[in-house]
Amino acid sequence: MPGTASLEPFFSPQSVAVIGASRTPGKIGYAVSENLIKAGFKGKLFLVNPQAEEILGRPCVKSVSQLNGIDLGIVCVPAELVPGIVAECGKKRFKALVIISSGFDEIGNQELTEKLRRALRPFPTMRVIGPNCLGIMNMKNRVDSLFLPEYRLKRPKPGGISFISQSGAVGSAILDWASMMDYGVGKFISYGNALDIDETDLLTYLVNDPETKVIVLYLEGVKSGRKFFEAAKKLAWKKPVIVLKGGITAEGGKAAGSHTGSLAGSAQVYAAAFKQTGMIPAGCLQDLFDYARTFIHAPEARGKRVQIITDGGGYGVVAADAVALNGLQLANMQESALAAMRKQMPSYVVLKNPLDLTGGTSNEWYGLALGAALTDKNVDLIALIILFQVPNLTSDVVQVISNLNARKTKPLTVISVGGEFSEVHKRAMEHDGIVTFSYPENAIRSLKALADFYEFQRKKKRKP
Amino acid sequence: MPGTASLEPFFSPQSVAVIGASRTPGKIGYAVSENLIKAGFKGKLFLVNPQAEEILGRPCVKSVSQLNGIDLGIVCVPAELVPGIVAECGKKRFKALVIISSGFDEIGNQELTEKLRRALRPFPTMRVIGPNCLGIMNMKNRVDSLFLPEYRLKRPKPGGISFISQSGAVGSAILDWASMMDYGVGKFISYGNALDIDETDLLTYLVNDPETKVIVLYLEGVKSGRKFFEAAKKLAWKKPVIVLKGGITAEGGKAAGSHTGSLAGSAQVYAAAFKQTGMIPAGCLQDLFDYARTFIHAPEARGKRVQIITDGGGYGVVAADAVALNGLQLANMQESALAAMRKQMPSYVVLKNPLDLTGGTSNEWYGLALGAALTDKNVDLIALIILFQVPNLTSDVVQVISNLNARKTKPLTVISVGGEFSEVHKRAMEHDGIVTFSYPENAIRSLKALADFYEFQRKKKRKP
Repeated sequence: MPGTASLEPFFSPQSVAVIGASRTPGKIGYAVSENLIKAGFKGKLFLVNPQAEEILGRPCVKSVSQLNGIDLGIVCVPAELVPGIVAECGKKRFKALVIISSGFDEIGNQELTEKLRRALRPFPTMRVIGPNCLGIMNMKNRVDSLFLPEYRLKRPKPGGISFISQSGAVGSAILDWASMMDYGVGKFISYGNALDIDETDLLTYLVNDPETKVIVLYLEGVKSGRKFFEAAKKLAWKKPVIVLKGGITAEGGKAAGSHTGSLAGSAQVYAAAFKQTGMIPAGCLQDLFDYARTFIHAPEARGKRVQIITDGGGYGVVAADAVALNGLQLANMQESALAAMRKQMPSYVVLKNPLDLTGGTSNEWYGLALGAALTDKNVDLIALIILFQVPNLTSDVVQVISNLNARKTKPLTVISVGGEFSEVHKRAMEHDGIVTFSYPENAIRSLKALADFYEFQRKKKRKP
Repeated sequence: MPGTASLEPFFSPQSVAVIGASRTPGKIGYAVSENLIKAGFKGKLFLVNPQAEEILGRPCVKSVSQLNGIDLGIVCVPAELVPGIVAECGKKRFKALVIISSGFDEIGNQELTEKLRRALRPFPTMRVIGPNCLGIMNMKNRVDSLFLPEYRLKRPKPGGISFISQSGAVGSAILDWASMMDYGVGKFISYGNALDIDETDLLTYLVNDPETKVIVLYLEGVKSGRKFFEAAKKLAWKKPVIVLKGGITAEGGKAAGSHTGSLAGSAQVYAAAFKQTGMIPAGCLQDLFDYARTFIHAPEARGKRVQIITDGGGYGVVAADAVALNGLQLANMQESALAAMRKQMPSYVVLKNPLDLTGGTSNEWYGLALGAALTDKNVDLIALIILFQVPNLTSDVVQVISNLNARKTKPLTVISVGGEFSEVHKRAMEHDGIVTFSYPENAIRSLKALADFYEFQRKKKRKP
């Protein structure tokens, strides 16, 4: 069984070897080499290819035997060559390997998997991610084993959201999404068949990683459920861990390559287990992304009382429904706060919850309402609906909202929908660290996720 | 009680009078006049203002008494003047009125509402939409009573989706959404307080309107539930009627201005009633939009058997879960079809459901798989996942998919997520009449809506 050495060589290697580097565009060994060079990886980079003199203008190394004590090897040779290569790497004291190559368990080739396992056995301190994976990315130092070219998969900027994905497809979609939405990513791991390093190792590593603020986890199977959930119970209250389990139905489980029989009732089993650990289950892929965006921006949620502020009645109604359906409560603002607003707004403004500024709203009224909600002790969470179609709002309202939110005293979600005019203002708010949504229901679900997590965390802090 | 004359004067007026037209930008009477002029309304347009000589370069009429037999009056005078104005309009044989002015029931002014009702009583053939509404829009002839300026609320192109919205805010968001997504809109009605024309009248009108293919309905209260549901039972199986009910919880109901007491259990009551009529209930605003997009593009769904085609395993797993969770079935393609594909694709392609073309996929494999699913008698619905991050796909795959879908033999949803590279291809497919989604869950819910509606319709056709 492989050892338990630190995972640092994966994420902060001083030296990287691409084993199976290629001169041929379109090949995995080409894309990986190109990405590392283009991304500007600052450590020593070795391209290993028995035939080539140079690749992408860099001199090649003929064989692993010429290298010694490399931190990270990225293996992209054909599957049948992998056992031999990893044995060589072990002998040359490589510290960590990412095996991208596929053609093992996932296509039913248990024999080759066993051969690989045996090849690794003499080198318990050499840790392995994969095989059959996209591998890893650390946005901070641009270690990047992904074989998807940058023009197809734009890399996100560095930031606090880290991802663990068993599926390469979900993983790459996540990265692409993050870069499009301009969210920063810390570390990304697609761990494939999990021959050595599994979800438990990765969760443990990221919870202890000071650069990771929010963890997003896409799981299909869990190799050892007990081990994973025991670890998660100890760890998942420390940081938000948002999780989507694929294969929760017999149909999905079959697609995930699991045995149908063993999965009966798994949706309930997983839901209960997640709840016990404080992990935040996402109901769908969109929620997974929405929760990540919300947690990265929001301060601690101190309760479940939501104040809705709106300039459109119907959107307020839908938001109020969502508050109730998600088990949150409508806040009752203090009489004094309402009285103060009453003096500064016309009588047709509805000072209830939803607080309906109506289509006659100005920037100033949004400022008054949001300011009051942020300081009112009866309000824990804020859902601010702003429909830019009304006549008296100007672009400056973005600044009004951003300024009030700057100290991040309470979780704030902004809901706005419309054409380009609305989208421009949403992007401006996102730029200022405000999480925005198109629909009230999604925003309220995200607030619910915040409320649940921080309530769990507080309980855990009181009674560890 | 007002009469039952046709609603045609609202949507195809030969003459329109803006009563309360204004010279002052920012005023409702200015925005309405400007929109009608700019939109190029082709009939006769009269701007009524007692003081102004001309507005926006057009000569004004001093008073309604100078007009006669106008098809449509758009009333934007202050609320207290409305009863007097409508009586004048009645005397001058106006056929239809949209009363935009607010300040009636909705702010508790029952007295003024009663006064308005009395003023209308002598003119039963003059139909009224409003008060307290955005009014109407008919994209085909650019009749447009909305007071939201075009730069804030871009008007959509003409098309087959018509909207009925009790809420102006939800209504304008819908229009803005449609224009941003480039979906065509037929008629749009925001009917506010429903003093005369209500949801039943409008539903009846749109079901019988040959230009309307899909009806989208946002409801808060229903004035006469029995009348509405009786009408819906007769009508809603004829065309897709997608409905979102706001105020289904005590909290939302209160926000909608209804009495909490009478709403207890209303979510269940409405759900059951919608089901009986064949209307398609949307669970949230996003579903409302997604279902509309899907119904406008998709042919009849002949059953519930979904074939998933994917190039990413994880997305396929999530889609398979969604199929099961929504009560749909995974299709079993015919052996002969699978055997034919087997001959043309490498062994690592997973010819099951999900049909996983893997990250090695080419355009051609998508063509083979989609072609097979479209002709296979065991497949009713298709969810095609295409993640553009993989190396061998080219932009031409859009053409491959579009060509196969051109005859619209089966409902097809395309699911793709990612950055700009993916978005460009999604837009190209949307342009070709293919409905696209970012997440499998949303696509599968939309397929479920199709399956349910057409099943209901077939039953109704067999046993009317």
